[in-house]
Order: sequence, then C-alpha cells, then structure tokens
Amino acid sequence: MAPLVQNRLAPVPLMKSWIESANDPECDFPLNNLPMGVFSLDHGEPRCCTAIGKFVLDLTGLEDARIIQGSDGEMFQTSALNCFMAQGEKAWASLRSQLQTLLSDGSSISSEQKIIKNFLHPAQTVEMHLPFKVSEYTDFYACKNHAFNVGTMLRGKENALPPNYFHIPIGYNGRASTVVVGGTKIVRPKGQIKPPKKEHPIYAPSSRLDMELEIGAVVGLPSEMGHPISLEEAEAMIFGYVLLNDWSARDIQAFEYQPLGPFQAKAFATSIGPWVITKAALEPFRVSTPNRVKPLLAYLEDTGPMLYNINLAIEIQTASLHSATIISKTNYKEMYYSAAQQLTHHASSGCAMNTGDLLGSGTISGSQSSSYGSFMELSWGGEKPIELPSGETRSFLHDGDKITLKGHCQGNGYRIGFGECSGEILPALK
Amino acid sequence: MAPLVQNRLAPVPLMKSWIESANDPECDFPLNNLPMGVFSLDHGEPRCCTAIGKFVLDLTGLEDARIIQGSDGEMFQTSALNCFMAQGEKAWASLRSQLQTLLSDGSSISSEQKIIKNFLHPAQTVEMHLPFKVSEYTDFYACKNHAFNVGTMLRGKENALPPNYFHIPIGYNGRASTVVVGGTKIVRPKGQIKPPKKEHPIYAPSSRLDMELEIGAVVGLPSEMGHPISLEEAEAMIFGYVLLNDWSARDIQAFEYQPLGPFQAKAFATSIGPWVITKAALEPFRVSTPNRVKPLLAYLEDTGPMLYNINLAIEIQTASLHSATIISKTNYKEMYYSAAQQLTHHASSGCAMNTGDLLGSGTISGSQSSSYGSFMELSWGGEKPIELPSGETRSFLHDGDKITLKGHCQGNGYRIGFGECSGEILPALK
Repeated sequence: MAPLVQNRLAPVPLMKSWIESANDPECDFPLNNLPMGVFSLDHGEPRCCTAIGKFVLDLTGLEDARIIQGSDGEMFQTSALNCFMAQGEKAWASLRSQLQTLLSDGSSISSEQKIIKNFLHPAQTVEMHLPFKVSEYTDFYACKNHAFNVGTMLRGKENALPPNYFHIPIGYNGRASTVVVGGTKIVRPKGQIKPPKKEHPIYAPSSRLDMELEIGAVVGLPSEMGHPISLEEAEAMIFGYVLLNDWSARDIQAFEYQPLGPFQAKAFATSIGPWVITKAALEPFRVSTPNRVKPLLAYLEDTGPMLYNINLAIEIQTASLHSATIISKTNYKEMYYSAAQQLTHHASSGCAMNTGDLLGSGTISGSQSSSYGSFMELSWGGEKPIELPSGETRSFLHDGDKITLKGHCQGNGYRIGFGECSGEILPALK
Repeated sequence: MAPLVQNRLAPVPLMKSWIESANDPECDFPLNNLPMGVFSLDHGEPRCCTAIGKFVLDLTGLEDARIIQGSDGEMFQTSALNCFMAQGEKAWASLRSQLQTLLSDGSSISSEQKIIKNFLHPAQTVEMHLPFKVSEYTDFYACKNHAFNVGTMLRGKENALPPNYFHIPIGYNGRASTVVVGGTKIVRPKGQIKPPKKEHPIYAPSSRLDMELEIGAVVGLPSEMGHPISLEEAEAMIFGYVLLNDWSARDIQAFEYQPLGPFQAKAFATSIGPWVITKAALEPFRVSTPNRVKPLLAYLEDTGPMLYNINLAIEIQTASLHSATIISKTNYKEMYYSAAQQLTHHASSGCAMNTGDLLGSGTISGSQSSSYGSFMELSWGGEKPIELPSGETRSFLHDGDKITLKGHCQGNGYRIGFGECSGEILPALK
C-alpha cells in the first residue's frame, strides 16, 4: 500500500490577477480556481465559460477570437462542456495554463487585456445552465457517518452498517433526466406513501421531503465495456467536482425501496452547482481517506491521499427568516471512499463509463449533529425537529423553503470556491 | 374501471406482399409486422431499416429517393431510430401505411417494385446494430411468478413478495452504457463475491452468471419534468417493444444488493434484439392483465387489455450440443403490470422520460418450471441443475454457452416475430 499523506498543507500561494475582484480573499473564484461552466446572456445561445472574480469569462468567444486554442481540436463550440471534458488531462492542463497566463497580474499586456475585457460579463448579469450533458447519474452511499445514522434509524446501532459496507463503495443508478442546475425550482413530488396506520398506500404529495448534501464527481474520459479500470486510470478520467443536492422524498422511499432500492423517491430532481471545479484547482487540498475498518481488496486499496479538504455548508431560507441561516457544516474529507474508488468500483464488472457520467458521493455527514447532511439525520427521522432563528422548526422541507449548498477549500489568503447550489421548493401539482 | 377484454382474438388476416418470403406462415416478418431496426452493409455507415420476409429494406435509402416521406420532417437521416421515434403516433402510422402500400401484393406497380428492389438486402448479408440510442435504462420486476420464485428462495414462501408488490410496479434504474445489440458477445464479469464459508469477499469472475428473459418497452415521446402522466399518455409515448436479456451475476448481486439494490451484478451487459416491434403490429394481440390481488391506485388502474399475447422461448447452444435446444417457453401475458403501467409509475414523481428510454419488463416466468425465465429459477438457485439433451447439466452459464431469446405473436396463418436476441459467453479477462 502506498504511504498516506495526512492533511497535506496547501503549498500554493494566491496567483494574482489583473481582475481585482479575483484577489479578494473571500472570493470563490481567484485565478487559482478557474472553474468550468455554461452561461447565456439575454436568453442567447448557451456558451462555455470560466469564472474569475466577479465575472464570467466567455470561453466560446475567446476560442472564436483565437485568443485561446485547444491542444486537441475545438473545445467550446457547443453549449455544454462534454466535448472539452472528453479531451483529457493534456487539454485540460493546456487551457488552464493559457488562462492563467492571460489573466495573471502583470503578465498580460494592456492591448490583450482590452480584448479579453470584451468577453468578461458581470456574474449577476448572466444566466447559468447545466454545465454538461449528464450521460448517466450514479449515487453512492460512501460516507460512513451518514450510512451509520440512517442504518441506526432503520435497523438499530448494532446492524446499522450492512456487511458489505467496508468492502464496497455502495451505489445505485440514479436518474439523469432530472439533473438540473442550481437555481431551478423543485416541485414537491407525489408518490405512493403508506400512512402509518393504514393498510394500503395512497398517492399523495411527499410530506417528508429532504435534501442531501453531496459532492458530484464528473467523468471526463470514457472507459471501454468489458474493461475494468485501475484507481490511477479512474483519477485520470475524472474532470472535476460539483456541489450536488440529491433531493429525496423519505416517505415515498420508505414504501418503495425494498427489495430493489430507491426509485421514484429520488427520480424527481437532483440539483448540481453551475461550476465544475477542476482537479487541478483542488490538487493542493488533497487529504487522506480515513483509517480502514477492514482492509480493502487490492483494486480499491488507497493509492495516496484520495480525498479533498472541502468545507461544506447547508443554508436554509424560509418565509419567516430575515436572512438565510446555516443549518449544517461538514467537510468532504468525511468520506469513507473517494470518487476514484467509486469510479473504479463502478467499472469493476466491465461497466462502460462515459463522458458526462455524474457520480454523487452520497450524503456527507460529520460525526456531530451540527454536521449532518440531510434533514433525515438533522431531525433524526422527524423525532427532533431543528429550531431556526425565527423560532420556527423543521423536520423536513416546507413549500417555499430554499436550500443552498456552499463549498470551498481554504488556501493561504484565498479560497477555491464551488459557488452555490440552491433550490426552492414549490408546492405539489394539484 | 373500464371493462377488460380477455384474450381478444386476432381479427387481422395476413397482408400479402409481392416479396414472396414475407407470406411464409413461419416467417417472423410478414407485411403485418414491419419492425424497425438499423443495419449496415460492408461496414458502411449504419442506416435505418425495416424487415420484410428474408430481406431488410433500407429506409434511409427510400427516404433519400423520396419513395417514402415523413409526415413531420426527416425520419431516417441518422444512424439510429431516435429521430423517428420522437415524431409520435401520426408519423409512425403514416410510415406504416406508406410501406404497406408499397409492399403489398398487387398494389405496387412493377416499375416501383424495380426501384424498391434496389433497397432490399438479403438479411444474412447485413450487420444489425443497436436500433436506437438508449437514453436511460430502467429494469422492472413486474412479473409476479418471477418475483415470487426469487422471493421464495431468499425469504421463504410466506414472505416471498414484498408488501409493496401489489401496489407498485417495482423497478430500479439500470445502466444504459452497456445495452448492446443481440449477437454481441458477453464477457463474464468479475466482481466482489463472498464465498459461503469465508469472512471476506474476493474479487473474482462470477460463477453464477445468469440470463433474464424480458421484453423491453421503448419510449418514443418524452414527458416533462414535474409532470406525471396518465396511462393513456404512457400508451401514446411507447414506440414499440424488443426482446431483452438482462444478464445477471447472481453471486455479485447477493453480496452487493443490500441496501440499495442491484448495481455491478447487472451493469456489465444487457442485450436487446435488433428489431423494435411497433405497437401497431402488436395491436391485434392485446390481452388483459391478470386479476388484481389488491386494487390498484387510480393512476395505475387497468384501462383495458394492456398486455400482449407474445410467445417467448429461451434456447441454449453449448459446445456439446448438436443443435440449440429450448430450455424454457413462456408468454408476455404472464406480466402483472403492463409497460404503460410501468411508464406511468416511472413518471409518477415528476421524473422526466425521454425518447430512447428503455424499460425492461422484469424476468418473464410462467407458473411451471418449464416456463421460468432465468437459470436462478430453472435450477432453483443451483440446487436442481437442468439436464440438456447432450447429458450435460447447467445451473448457470458456462463459458462458450450461447443463449438465444425468441418471441412471436401467432396470427391466423402468419406470425409477428421479434427475430432473435442472442449472446455468447466469453471467459472473464485474466
């Protein structure tokens, strides 16, 4: 087993940009970040972009104007990142290097800056779209604290974790057709729900509507059917990471999930943040997976620090609250299995993976109740509603509630931010 | 509830064609059928086609030559049926009518026949491809006999069916990236398997590799996110049906499936037949769903005869057998839930459905052991291996075994055939 490095400190200093707002220590998008997304202006055609300070930078436009060039052909002449994502690490590194040169303080000459300014748009003036076409969506269950909490509620502490938990990054196929970009409003789903004292289910709006705080890994390079992949190959295939909210209807889930797993309880919506944070931006923040409760099989054995130190928070805004309030703080380093381990396991049977596949980490919960990633855990199945500053309580989501996920890695005088991923609950259809 | 019609007899006579082989009562592809597929010739670009007698008819070519015309724009200028599938019932009916006019005995004039002959290719000279791009794949568990058999093996007769079974067409999301056309060879998958007397799992080739005989429903028209659909809307959205083999690794499944359902045990491959049989061709063979054990909720209540009388068979060819031998015969009318009921339930939470979505019925088993649709049932979990005419036995699939699924509706002097869906097992990778 390769030696593990614990909490490697970020050695990379802030790279200053001539775009002043990017140098603010509280800004999500310094020059060290350069996340990837898709925007539109005035309802025009969606175009690929990055974020720098308070601006989005039109990459489709920069490519058209030949200010940036692909190392492997056209990158951004479509309204989704998939084409660029499929080009692999050399192309990703080349773009990053070109952009850092163009945007860094001092290194750009003023005539070039003038041209680039034509492609900068204030972030608040643009509409963000789904950054890539989601090929297939898989949701994992790979944070031990969350699995333990949910298992304890269902089966008691002794049997909380299934026997396979410490061997397999457990996952199930989710529904790609309803992955939406953060900001999209979420209609409260209906489904088959069995009231506690009734013999038969009813078809009714969910009254136990939940969020799940997750990080999604975005697959850039595909793998071939019939060919399992190594952890190194999996690492190379991953393009980047997004905030992900795996909305869940717990009452629909309770009645449907045996014996074949969650289906309609999860199928109505999954929100992802508009920005894909690249592996290169996250690299200085690598940390190790936790100590292994049982040894992993060789194909899943840790190769080094495989997680990232990403601070995560959940905010809620209700009709009665003056301003959004944080209801949970946790960290991606709480994961038991890394995204590369999930991806390697996903292909372990010979399952082909494609550009645009999205792998949800599973709900990320810390060990304390203030760090739980779902209402199911925060209110302990509805038994202990949480109190908000307005005095109101919540066991699950009410109509009109808005949930916002946030995340960032803390560098020395700067942060690698994920932006935010929000969703407001609309009433169920009549 | 609408009155149910039991086993409505096929009132439609054979439509004779000037292509003689189409009039053979044993031929899968008479003029009444006109299934839809995709073929290529001499490794050329794949083109859309139908089958008539012993020929495939190049529909991309016929459209190019303006012999057929879309009622809603171009139909076949791509190498998959998705564009045509998305055009809906009017376009589907218009094509069927044009083809039946062109190919019917007597109605075509000889000069027209001469042109059409240029687009006919003997079936054995072409290569068949996946007929449509699979958007997402969902597998159901909607045949009661199969669910009862598997449940009995796992939990005993008393608890064989889960409490939700008679309320919900139980389904789970499968993996679309590994849906392949019949004829594609299947590599034996590896996975985490827990040997009975060992404490820890091993990563090894599956030794309990199984088939599952299913019928897949192919979604033509999409539905909108947040908008459940009625059974009538679901019927109108379905383009047609294919043979489907949901290959399954039972030993991988046994260790992984709790608590979130099958994952890698099913992800390595699913085979579908090359021909999509249209709803119009199947219409005369409608039969009712079985008597309801418990009343269905209103949104799933039967609207009339919702199944089809499709005779199904599984053949095996092994190295020792002189010729393929039938190991099971069953019928699609054994289903408890129809495809429209599955589709309506799939959208019941507001899940968006797309053109190209594939819905596996679940394994189709009759009530007798000679009509079981999987080795799991045929060999009762491996306890009672079946004997083949060569004297050899099978509990599960060996390397080199070839499974072929067949299906047809029996008309009066003709059949609506599904062609076949085969797959040969290759050894696991070293």
